[in-house]
Amino acid sequence: MLQLHNGEAQVMLDTPGFIEVTPTADIKVTRHGNRAKCLQRLIRMGLPVPQTVALPFRTVRDIADGKMPDLATLISLFDGQPMLLSLRSSSETADWGGPNAVLNIGMNDKAHAWLSNTLGDVAADKLYLRFIRSFAIDVMRLDEEPFLEAQTPLEAREIFEAEVDDPFPQAITDQLAAVLRSMARAWEGTSARLLRQAQGAPADAGLGLVVQRMAQGMGPGQSGSGIVQFVNPNTGEPQVTGRYLGQAMGRDALIDRDKAIYLTRDARGPSLQDLLPEVYRELLEVGEACRKRLREEMQVEFTIDQGRLAILDAVRCPREARASVAIAASLARDGVIPRSEALLRVAPGTLSHLLHRQIDPRAKRTVLVRGIAASPGAAVGKIVFDSAAAQASQSRDEACILVRRETTPDDVRGMHAAQAVLTERGGSTSHAAVIARGLGLPCVTGATGLRISGTKRRVTLPDGTILREGDEITVDGSSGEVLAGAVATQEPAIDGAFGDLMKWSDDVRDIGVRANADTVADATLSRTFGVDGIGLCRTEHMFFDSGRLTVMREMIFAETPSDRAAALERLLPMQRDDFTELFQLMSGLPVCIRLLDPPLHEFLPSENEGIRALAEALDRPLSEVKARIEAMQEYNPMLGMRGVRLGIALPEIYEMQARAIFEATVAARAAGAQTMPEIMIPLVTARREVELVKRRIDAIATAVREETGQDFDYRVGVMVETPRAALRAGEIAETSAFLSFGTNDLTQMTYGLSRDDAGRFMSAYVNEGVYPEDPFRTLDVDGVGELLLLGAQRGRKARANVTLALCGEHGGNPESIAFCRLAGFDYVSCSPFRVPVAKLAAAQATLLGGPKGGHPAD
Amino acid sequence: MLQLHNGEAQVMLDTPGFIEVTPTADIKVTRHGNRAKCLQRLIRMGLPVPQTVALPFRTVRDIADGKMPDLATLISLFDGQPMLLSLRSSSETADWGGPNAVLNIGMNDKAHAWLSNTLGDVAADKLYLRFIRSFAIDVMRLDEEPFLEAQTPLEAREIFEAEVDDPFPQAITDQLAAVLRSMARAWEGTSARLLRQAQGAPADAGLGLVVQRMAQGMGPGQSGSGIVQFVNPNTGEPQVTGRYLGQAMGRDALIDRDKAIYLTRDARGPSLQDLLPEVYRELLEVGEACRKRLREEMQVEFTIDQGRLAILDAVRCPREARASVAIAASLARDGVIPRSEALLRVAPGTLSHLLHRQIDPRAKRTVLVRGIAASPGAAVGKIVFDSAAAQASQSRDEACILVRRETTPDDVRGMHAAQAVLTERGGSTSHAAVIARGLGLPCVTGATGLRISGTKRRVTLPDGTILREGDEITVDGSSGEVLAGAVATQEPAIDGAFGDLMKWSDDVRDIGVRANADTVADATLSRTFGVDGIGLCRTEHMFFDSGRLTVMREMIFAETPSDRAAALERLLPMQRDDFTELFQLMSGLPVCIRLLDPPLHEFLPSENEGIRALAEALDRPLSEVKARIEAMQEYNPMLGMRGVRLGIALPEIYEMQARAIFEATVAARAAGAQTMPEIMIPLVTARREVELVKRRIDAIATAVREETGQDFDYRVGVMVETPRAALRAGEIAETSAFLSFGTNDLTQMTYGLSRDDAGRFMSAYVNEGVYPEDPFRTLDVDGVGELLLLGAQRGRKARANVTLALCGEHGGNPESIAFCRLAGFDYVSCSPFRVPVAKLAAAQATLLGGPKGGHPAD
Repeated sequence: MLQLHNGEAQVMLDTPGFIEVTPTADIKVTRHGNRAKCLQRLIRMGLPVPQTVALPFRTVRDIADGKMPDLATLISLFDGQPMLLSLRSSSETADWGGPNAVLNIGMNDKAHAWLSNTLGDVAADKLYLRFIRSFAIDVMRLDEEPFLEAQTPLEAREIFEAEVDDPFPQAITDQLAAVLRSMARAWEGTSARLLRQAQGAPADAGLGLVVQRMAQGMGPGQSGSGIVQFVNPNTGEPQVTGRYLGQAMGRDALIDRDKAIYLTRDARGPSLQDLLPEVYRELLEVGEACRKRLREEMQVEFTIDQGRLAILDAVRCPREARASVAIAASLARDGVIPRSEALLRVAPGTLSHLLHRQIDPRAKRTVLVRGIAASPGAAVGKIVFDSAAAQASQSRDEACILVRRETTPDDVRGMHAAQAVLTERGGSTSHAAVIARGLGLPCVTGATGLRISGTKRRVTLPDGTILREGDEITVDGSSGEVLAGAVATQEPAIDGAFGDLMKWSDDVRDIGVRANADTVADATLSRTFGVDGIGLCRTEHMFFDSGRLTVMREMIFAETPSDRAAALERLLPMQRDDFTELFQLMSGLPVCIRLLDPPLHEFLPSENEGIRALAEALDRPLSEVKARIEAMQEYNPMLGMRGVRLGIALPEIYEMQARAIFEATVAARAAGAQTMPEIMIPLVTARREVELVKRRIDAIATAVREETGQDFDYRVGVMVETPRAALRAGEIAETSAFLSFGTNDLTQMTYGLSRDDAGRFMSAYVNEGVYPEDPFRTLDVDGVGELLLLGAQRGRKARANVTLALCGEHGGNPESIAFCRLAGFDYVSCSPFRVPVAKLAAAQATLLGGPKGGHPAD
Repeated sequence: MLQLHNGEAQVMLDTPGFIEVTPTADIKVTRHGNRAKCLQRLIRMGLPVPQTVALPFRTVRDIADGKMPDLATLISLFDGQPMLLSLRSSSETADWGGPNAVLNIGMNDKAHAWLSNTLGDVAADKLYLRFIRSFAIDVMRLDEEPFLEAQTPLEAREIFEAEVDDPFPQAITDQLAAVLRSMARAWEGTSARLLRQAQGAPADAGLGLVVQRMAQGMGPGQSGSGIVQFVNPNTGEPQVTGRYLGQAMGRDALIDRDKAIYLTRDARGPSLQDLLPEVYRELLEVGEACRKRLREEMQVEFTIDQGRLAILDAVRCPREARASVAIAASLARDGVIPRSEALLRVAPGTLSHLLHRQIDPRAKRTVLVRGIAASPGAAVGKIVFDSAAAQASQSRDEACILVRRETTPDDVRGMHAAQAVLTERGGSTSHAAVIARGLGLPCVTGATGLRISGTKRRVTLPDGTILREGDEITVDGSSGEVLAGAVATQEPAIDGAFGDLMKWSDDVRDIGVRANADTVADATLSRTFGVDGIGLCRTEHMFFDSGRLTVMREMIFAETPSDRAAALERLLPMQRDDFTELFQLMSGLPVCIRLLDPPLHEFLPSENEGIRALAEALDRPLSEVKARIEAMQEYNPMLGMRGVRLGIALPEIYEMQARAIFEATVAARAAGAQTMPEIMIPLVTARREVELVKRRIDAIATAVREETGQDFDYRVGVMVETPRAALRAGEIAETSAFLSFGTNDLTQMTYGLSRDDAGRFMSAYVNEGVYPEDPFRTLDVDGVGELLLLGAQRGRKARANVTLALCGEHGGNPESIAFCRLAGFDYVSCSPFRVPVAKLAAAQATLLGGPKGGHPAD
């Protein structure tokens, strides 16, 4: 006899190990899986579901261990002639997967003969051949090629019997036992386990199975099978879509698309609506019932057996990001689900996809090179190799893509002018990536196969192809792919559903969301997304404008305080205008401005041409300018003369900035704006630094009040980005109105790891599990997180009303937001394009995260 | 009447406010000051001390506030004709200073007449003129010039009366009140307060005063005054030194050196021993009595009044570093003080001066430029500008001084060959400073006035003078001065007293002291100083040897693991030999070896010549080698691909090092050494890093055991130098036998401050009080210290027997050692030349620091 049991003795279970799915049966998702429960719901709704039996997780585990339920009794529950059954998986969550369905279990010579009589030879042969193929390939794991070549059941049987040296099993119990065992063991396989764990399944996730009487879509009259869904899977708009195929079963209608027909009557040809208007109407009712009773848009698998509708299965309708937002919002608007549930149904990251132009899913993609998906969205443009060329392109109204080995602050103006950025080096937290996300610019980094020659103005692809300046490419920052030519793209989808979700998030959340916004464009975008203010306005970018950069450089090269003051005098009105515009735009909301942070050498030219231009502007010998630039270089700029250290060494700079802020406050108020400036001191390590800088700021405020006769309020606080500032947050809070944790730098220092240099090994580190996640993407709760908690506790203890915030890149990360909320933070601040994500994540954290500030003290 | 009271009403104290110093009087250092107490002790010893009255701190404070004691009663305590008194300050500690003494209070017209009769006109005029000058200048703060020009008391009185428009005060009570008030107020002055606070005085330190009857050193017969001490102030050897001047008082003998005579009979001329052999013998007895009863070598101020000795004062004998060690040891050896007290009497830092050659204090110094005293000791040599020239000098047996703008790892071999290092840039914790201290090489850094041109082989001094390669200079790393030509120097003083102190320290201390030793020379020196083991052997320096550097570079440039393995195969025997020699030398003591730490690009050449040589050695095009070197550069090398990150990315390197360590262990044992290797993993941030590296090390150990048939023990631990490692010390300790805190890097990361870049502003930061101390010199107890405590607590909690250590530069800092001891650390490790300092500091901490591990938990 065929060794279907692999030589193991057949052991029977003590309990039946299965249960018939009836409206009152005790079926549970956590015991029988999602599909079994869904089928019970459909049955309860009175839908024509064929008879179904569910095997719980325990039974399937027993089967994998060699213990089989009493299959004779199981089969005796079913009626029907011939006795044909389907077996489908039913895991706890559809995302966790499961083995493919096996149909027509029970097909044997006898059933073949019976079906030949009733359906005809062609249909009977087709069914039998199909079953033997499926049994041989999916269950017995035989080589598939000969079976796909076989054209008749007889041929297939002969191949089978030659391969296994035993007759094809005829008893339905033997067939069922073999299928059950195969599915149970497949679930336990390593790759299946890894795949489902990647979807969040626990290590001991169970598999349920569903045995269902086959509803034949083959036979006389109108018979066939199909799939229907009631919304557009791309947009979520109401729309009946799907396919129907006569004389077919299972998902044939989707596989054999050429022969399948559409469901709805339109110009494309015959439709189910034409063919069987009654059944079509019935299907619409099924959809409506599902939506109301199952509270979800479902994809329904149906069979028509001689004109009679049977519902075999219904699963959550698959959907693109945009549709998932639209469906959740629509269900809530219609009162099917509460708004809070709509908020919980959308993964926050989904929203990112709505904010950017995307590659049209139907477009043809020719991948030139792959890199890291560093900033989402897609853009088409001509290759340029430096900022000057990008700006020239922009002035010609030509879209361009900035291609660099890596970017430096010098490239920021080029990024402003480009449609996307592509770099050979760097990771998802490199300079290019961070700036691009801030600008909402698609960006691919770490495209390591490229060889870029800026001087020769060409880039060599991994396959040796050479692209030159002006050649057109498409950058897909969502997938990390660079595509040949101009690929079609789709508009962003900031529509009504999106707006509803944002509004409902605002109603729910108990932690603020501000934006990191340096420019008027950033601020405008932030207001569009309804932020609670600006949490981080980096003033350094304001000095990279070409007109200002020269003055900035003169200031840096000043040899006396009075020369420096003269240069700053010229920068003052520019800064004041920046802030005035910002304050007017953000009227009514707080704006937190960080005083100058980067080392001054970042403002100096690094290339010969720039140095020569500077020497001319300064009217100094080239050699001297070169020597001074060289003398300003630092071994570790991240750990050098920057932040508050600048403020203490060259107090005139911060004094100019404070004056610009206060004068802008007065000007914006005069223009009718409500302005509440906050001044943030970067890179603090000790209270005394804050005292020294704050004293000077207060003096400037007094002076401006006297000069203008206007009173105004302002707050001075600290950016906590060194471990020491977090540890000493208590004493620092005594002179600080707010503590805003800059988790980018804090992570760098806690790990002793530069974001710019980590790119070379971070992915290997994460892949090998050295770090569970890239700590620059996901807040390191154990290390950096402890410093946040310590800092928050100590800050609040010293000053009960101190404002606590997070303003690093992590501010847009849902897990980090939940962490900050539990730590009692007042707000997070993130790049404008992450604001919608952050707001939704904040709402979800509020709904699910327990009491605010409830982080267990350690 | 003369407004001596500045117009204030004279208020009297309720209590007497003074006390006569008698053997039984209640005189306390904390109430009357150090001098009052010392005088009481001299009186108790029966020495001829003139009658003395002490004013306590409270009285002097009251005087400053305008309340005067009853001076008539005070004066009535004294007998004598004429009534002349001296007034001296008596602060709690001699180092805290105090106003200068005022002598001969009571001089007036009447006393002048009386003295003219008894001593003659000349002596009487001299005394009166002197007092008027002193009263006018020191007490009344009149312009000194006219008084110094006045030649008679009459002239001086006229000038005085013209200036103040009042007669010179005649009443002794008026004179005394004025002097008291002047001294009391001077003590409260800002500059006096700052000066004494710099010496460690508390803000409310008090001043006592001592009123003493003048013992006249002027008059008939042998009269005069002098100073005597009984040890050589440079060496501490017994030797009577001092001066005596006839017809003089106070410290005249020291001021008027030309006229003063020596005390002891020798070839230099007349001596006190010749003149008054009895008095000389008496003085020797006074010295011996002071040594025994005051338990100290004293400097005694004496007067001879008509052949009769009077002892006016005795202070702790001033002494150079070497003498202070010799005196403490000698007192303990003679049983005058216990050994523990000898240990406490020597400031640990003092020992540094004994270990190095010093500039002869008698030599003439012509300072060329001043910088930071970065590594102690003095050396003479010819200027060289690079490592090659230094090595060439060495091969010619010519002493040389390496002069660089700043040093890089490339310069280490030049430092090995040089006698001293001078750099234009950098602070006390720059690369040059750290390496120089490690090598025991005198070093001056931050000599900012220099302009060094390595290509022109010359250095321009601040005054424009040009020195060329080969010119001889002297570097004084103890003072930070660079001197012209070859200045005479003295040998180090590691003598018997030093050895005794070291031995006594070992007997007392309860915290280990190991050395940071990379080379055989370091290790030999460490054994000389009696270390407890090697706490940090940095293996990177082993690869800078020119023969190895090439192989190292081939390893770095290897394109395949097998090429890399081949290069490592060649490095293996070299490393093995290094370790074998080290293990033999350190037999019986633990040796902790740190696996490779620096980024690999540190091993690559940065100059064209070196790159060309490398390209030739590798047989690759220059452009390719250049491009690869460039590609390896990092933005922030301190935060880059180094430490354990290398070990994980390129496991072959650590595997080679582990194999070298284990094979060396077997070899050293075969040669009879007792070896206990410890392997330290650098720059750890997470437990998983330790697990991965430790697993590979264990596998190598198993392999070596099998290959050699020898068993051996070893320990694997972690260098805690990132804030995260300190925070996660609990889980890291689970797989680590020891946690050694590398406070150099830990400080850099806690502050976000690179040691190399901090030099530019650290001194300004400390001067402005932003940081109380340079945290790279003195452990930042509040910030970095908290991480040490947290790490220690968590490490010990997870693994009770985990070894805790500190191996940064702070390991040689007394305050840090005391801190580590309280934190329960097992040992500190410091550069060999700091070992004596650390051992003495450890002993002092044990004697004074309370129970070990007794740091208050927070």
